[in-house]
This record gives sequence, structure tokens and C-alpha cells, in this order.
Amino acid sequence: MARALSHFHGKSTLSLSKPNPYRPSSSSSTFRPMMVAMAQTISYWASIEADVEAHLKTAIPIRRPVAVFEPMHHLVFAAPKTKAPALCIAVCELVGGDRAQAMAAASALHLMHSAAHTHEHLPLTDRPNPKPMVHHAYGPNIELLTGDGILPFGFELLARSVDPGQDNAKRVLRVIVEITRAIGSQGMIHGQYQELQGVQSNEWWVENVCKKKEGELHACGAACGAILGGGSEEEIEKLRKFGLYVGMIEGILNVVAGNKKGLMEIGDRLRVMAMKELENLNGRNVEPISSLVEASLCNV
Amino acid sequence: MARALSHFHGKSTLSLSKPNPYRPSSSSSTFRPMMVAMAQTISYWASIEADVEAHLKTAIPIRRPVAVFEPMHHLVFAAPKTKAPALCIAVCELVGGDRAQAMAAASALHLMHSAAHTHEHLPLTDRPNPKPMVHHAYGPNIELLTGDGILPFGFELLARSVDPGQDNAKRVLRVIVEITRAIGSQGMIHGQYQELQGVQSNEWWVENVCKKKEGELHACGAACGAILGGGSEEEIEKLRKFGLYVGMIEGILNVVAGNKKGLMEIGDRLRVMAMKELENLNGRNVEPISSLVEASLCNV
Repeated sequence: MARALSHFHGKSTLSLSKPNPYRPSSSSSTFRPMMVAMAQTISYWASIEADVEAHLKTAIPIRRPVAVFEPMHHLVFAAPKTKAPALCIAVCELVGGDRAQAMAAASALHLMHSAAHTHEHLPLTDRPNPKPMVHHAYGPNIELLTGDGILPFGFELLARSVDPGQDNAKRVLRVIVEITRAIGSQGMIHGQYQELQGVQSNEWWVENVCKKKEGELHACGAACGAILGGGSEEEIEKLRKFGLYVGMIEGILNVVAGNKKGLMEIGDRLRVMAMKELENLNGRNVEPISSLVEASLCNV
Repeated sequence: MARALSHFHGKSTLSLSKPNPYRPSSSSSTFRPMMVAMAQTISYWASIEADVEAHLKTAIPIRRPVAVFEPMHHLVFAAPKTKAPALCIAVCELVGGDRAQAMAAASALHLMHSAAHTHEHLPLTDRPNPKPMVHHAYGPNIELLTGDGILPFGFELLARSVDPGQDNAKRVLRVIVEITRAIGSQGMIHGQYQELQGVQSNEWWVENVCKKKEGELHACGAACGAILGGGSEEEIEKLRKFGLYVGMIEGILNVVAGNKKGLMEIGDRLRVMAMKELENLNGRNVEPISSLVEASLCNV
């Protein structure tokens, strides 16, 4: 993996106040054995995911009213993870920011996803494409209400992450708008509408639904990380597109039951487009986030 | 009504840059016939409601994707109105702010309420207390998704109301937190949980549910109006409590089918408590908002 990515390596210009044990050093990794580099990248993602989970566990303790917070706690952690929160943090670090700056946004992204996941699996009478069976720990009414409670909690976490010492109010407000659009009627909700009306065998349809659902969430995650970490407007837009392709690949992997040739071709095309977005991020260490695309495609 | 409220009238200290045709003048209304004062108050509320509706109609045009925005438009305007948005604007004006400063928050409050109303009437298999029959213009799936789309749109409207010229980013962020709490797991959602588990014949239960549902939404509306209009912390808290009682009275009126003696007594008590909160708002013209409590009780 490290060899395949060697043409993306540039000298890192990030000035870290203290050594970051999770961030692979681009200047030395090309000389290490491939297995070491892979282990380093994997531990980088694992450390981000562990930090986001720890942050969420502190943010959602099981407190009174228990009847409300116990299902909330359960459904937030029962939802399958996406790469959007980790991408948000990795991109923030990539553009020179600190992990803590993107933690609330990353947590909010998982909260939004878990609310959507909960509602998406509610047993409704008119779902034309029944979702795969999932275990329902609660009745539909509680799951509906819990999803409705998780969403505003995500925005509360975000709005409360404003720190006068960092003067980040404008960035946080911009991130709130980014997230409302990604999960709203022109983003994830649009994808869910399309899903209601389509047929899964059509590859164009799968690509389009994945673009609106997983694509927009990951695009948003990457853009938010870049905004919060202080990236340039050009970097924000390139990383947003990279995130879009990462999310679409993730979405396609979720849909593909077997190895459909057409979807594999879409996956290959998206991978090339994703890597293209990382080409001109001069002086940024893109290795950690480019591994997302490689790892995804290993499974197609 | 004007006579009953005359002890609340003080000389208005509000400095308006231009005459406000909607705001009753406290210095002259006590000398006018009661009918004129009532008509003036009614037209004040009607003008606020018309302004909020016009703002929402501009904010939610029926645009592409029509399959998404048409149900959104319909369900936002089909939801019965609450007084929370109008209270938000009236309080903003009461503490010396302009109507435009509270317009996004007032619109967001109606959006949050309409999302909750839509979800509250979804036909789920495990609702122990069936809601009164409502007309469903769409299937459950579309109504679920539309509610999920309305909520982030409300936060988007709010976050985008930041105006560098007004330097209002901190106030808007505070209002976002206020609204997330009012509609979230310790506010409206908590009330809906209680509603699932309770029995309507118990008056304590009715009062508690109304406190968490309509109470918190109106308390939030009043507090947001005071924050955005530049009220003092003391004014914000007094007006928040006033809003709480206004909302609880509205909630109780929604529950009462006949004239239940116990609920009438609760209504009377809340009315006294609401008016008490307006007593020490020195120099503020409280007549418009105090009429909310009087008007509510006329129907009990």
C-alpha cells in the first residue's frame, strides 16, 4: 500500500506542538517494510475511532430520564460505523488542525448517521424495498422518538463546541450549515426518497442513491474537517470531492451482495477520481486518508 | 382586557428607528375603548403570524427535487400553528429588538413543531394512546422522511441568519442550543415519552406532559426572542418562565375535551404565574404578550 501511494508523498509542512503517535510520518514510511506502514495506518484509524467513541460515551451518559437516555445510548452505539467521522478528523489533521477541533463535528456526524439508521429500519407499512432484518431493541414508537432526539443533540454538541479562546464561532456555524445540507432534503433525505422509488438492479440508480446518502455524508465529513482545521477553500473543495467518492464506494460496498461487474467498474472509476483529488494538495501528508480508498476496494 | 392589564403598563423605553404599525402604543391604549385595544392586539398577532408564514413560504419554495420539497411544503403549512413563533418575535420586540432579528428563530420553531407533529401522527403499530385521526396526504414513509428533512432545515435557516453586520453569531449559536434542548431528549421528546407511558385522566400527568411538550417549546420561543432582541439575562429568564406557562396553558387546552374542573384550576394557577413573570419588566410594554394568557383562558 505504501509503495502504491508513494507518488502522493510530500514533505509534511504540519507544525505539531507535540509528537502525534497516531500520525504516520510520511518522510520515513516509504523506507519501512510495507507491513509496518499498514499497521501504522490501521492504528491511526483505530485511534480516531476510539477517540470519537470515547467522546460520544462522555457526551451521552445514561442519565435521567433513563427511559429516554438508555435507548438513545443504545441506538447511537448499535448503529454500524461509517468512515465519515474518522474522515472528518483525519482531514482536520491533514490540513494542520488538532484532533480536538474536529471532535464535536465527528461525533455529530455519527449521531446524524445513527438517527437516520434508526429511522431507516422502522417497520413501516409502505416500505417497498424491505431493509435487511435488524434487531429491534425497542418498539417502533421509542425508536422513532429516539431518532428524533438524537438529531438535535448532534446540533447541540456542535453549537456548544464554540470556544471563545479559539474564536471558532464562524467555522462552527459553517459546519452546522454543511451538516444540515448533507443530512437534509437535498442530501441524505433525497437519497432515501430515490431509494423508495427505484430498483436496485439498475447500476445508475445505485450510484445515484449512494451519492446522495453515503456520498454526501462523507463529503460533508471531509469538508467539515478541512473547515475546522483551517484548510484553504481549494483544499476544502478537493477534500469534499474526495470524501464524496469515499462515501460512494462505501455505499456501493453496502449494496453489493455478490461481485457485480458493473458495480466493480463504478468502484474502480470512483477510486481513480478520489485519488485524483489528493494529487495537488501540496505539502500535505495524504497517506492516511488515501488508505481509505485502497482499503475499501480490497473488499469489492 | 386593557383595563385588566393596566397595572403592567409602564412607559416604553424602546427606541424604534421607524414607527411600528403592528405594535400597540401602551401610552395611549389605556384611554381608548376596549374594543379598539383588543382589535389592535389581535392585528398585532395576526401581523406577526403573516410575516412568519411569508418568511417560511420564501424559505421553502417547491423546487427540485419536487418529490422531496412538495411534501415538505405541504406538511410545514398543514401543521396547526402554535404561539411559540409569534411569542419569539413579540418578545424580541418587547426587549427592544427588531422583528427581522427573530424571524429565522420563529420560523425554525414552527419547522421543529411541524416535524414533531408529522412524526407524532405516523401510524405506528405500538402507539398505546391513538392520536385523533388526521388526514395523511402521504404514506408513512414519505411523512417520516419529510419530518427528518424539516428538522435540519430549521437549523440551517438559523445558522444562515448570522449577519456579519449585526455581529450576532454568538446569539444565534445560543439560540441553536436553546432550540436543540427544547425539542430534544430533555424537552419535547421527554414529554412524548411520558405521553406514551401515562394515562390521560391523571391531571398531574397532563400538566407534566404539557410542561415538557408545549411548555418547553414556548419557553424556548420567548427566551430566544429575548436573546436575539438583546434582553438582559434577568429578562430572558422571566420571559422564559412566562413562555413556559403560556405553552402549558396551550397544551392543556389541546387536551381538554370538555371543561374539566381540575384542569381549569391548573389553567388558572398557570395564568397567575405567567402574569407574575411580567410584573418587574420595568419600562417594557408587556400588553401584547400578556394578551396571550388572557386569550388562552377565554377558551378554558
